[in-house]
Amino acid sequence: MNPKIEKLIKQFAKLPRVGNRAARRIVLGLLQDKTGRIDKLIDALTDARENVCPCPNCGILTDRTNGMCEYCRDATRANGMLCIVRDLSDVWTLEKSGVFSGRYHILGGMLSGVAGVTPEDLNLKSLQKRIADEKIQEIIFALPNTVEGKTTQQYIISTLTNTNVQFTELASGVPLGGDLDYIDDGTLSLAFGGRRAI
Amino acid sequence: MNPKIEKLIKQFAKLPRVGNRAARRIVLGLLQDKTGRIDKLIDALTDARENVCPCPNCGILTDRTNGMCEYCRDATRANGMLCIVRDLSDVWTLEKSGVFSGRYHILGGMLSGVAGVTPEDLNLKSLQKRIADEKIQEIIFALPNTVEGKTTQQYIISTLTNTNVQFTELASGVPLGGDLDYIDDGTLSLAFGGRRAI
Repeated sequence: MNPKIEKLIKQFAKLPRVGNRAARRIVLGLLQDKTGRIDKLIDALTDARENVCPCPNCGILTDRTNGMCEYCRDATRANGMLCIVRDLSDVWTLEKSGVFSGRYHILGGMLSGVAGVTPEDLNLKSLQKRIADEKIQEIIFALPNTVEGKTTQQYIISTLTNTNVQFTELASGVPLGGDLDYIDDGTLSLAFGGRRAI
Repeated sequence: MNPKIEKLIKQFAKLPRVGNRAARRIVLGLLQDKTGRIDKLIDALTDARENVCPCPNCGILTDRTNGMCEYCRDATRANGMLCIVRDLSDVWTLEKSGVFSGRYHILGGMLSGVAGVTPEDLNLKSLQKRIADEKIQEIIFALPNTVEGKTTQQYIISTLTNTNVQFTELASGVPLGGDLDYIDDGTLSLAFGGRRAI
């Protein structure tokens, strides 16, 4: 195989959710395409590389020229609620659902002994200042419902004991449309523990 | 969502086998990565765009500076056999298997009334000249075993009646390890029709 093509396939195969076969298909598609798709892809990549960086306040990826991101600049979002999430894709998910209208704070990971992620690796420095500056009354943890998620949550709460913010977390239980046959014991146990009067 | 990020996701989502969700994952991975993966990807894409073009002889994508591709320049491959395939991925598949050591000819598509692909759209112009120049004695059709594949094959044979080349095609039948339970009637019928004495 031509080394230039091989190198390009290797770069695509390193992307998440793209295997070797898909990378070959993608590269062939791009190189045989006559509508300039490869130009558009290179342009969009270069533009994002040059101009996108994390918001200095919350960590959401945004235009470098804007300073803070669209959420941190939006005064209507300053409702005293701050939602802590792992990464930007969680923000997109929450925004799509429309359930939250406050501000976000992106950690950029979860504490993990196995993966060697320590508190210094997380975007925590600005948190204390944000609580004061933005008059945060409630911090909602929307982290993965895993051991790492819960550990991270407990750690963050322990660093904020000097504030009188209310801490909340998302409810655990049977998902909408969830069939009990297909639900794991851990979720079932949480759903039973959190049962509500009807 | 930031418009620059949205544009980049859209470009990735247009690639074959990459959906919207995967495109988001890819873009997030690239923009959050700190090992320069986005630089390497842009470099490889730019290099391929500037320097890769189809071999003027056979249609295989190759370095522009090389003139003809590695297969057409390799004298040991001039064994009088020419394998006609649909696209470059078929060449890769055949090369990986090691079953063929002659030269290739890439059509770049299949004749199709539905998709509006006519003989002018296929890489057929150089074929007649190649048969003479490269002293081709056998043309092996390794095209998809579909109506389009067979139509294309018949069309090409009909344009080469003035040569005394032998035309062959790949055998049809039950794949290695194939369970009869899972094989379609068409393949079974071909396998029965082509049964061999043991």
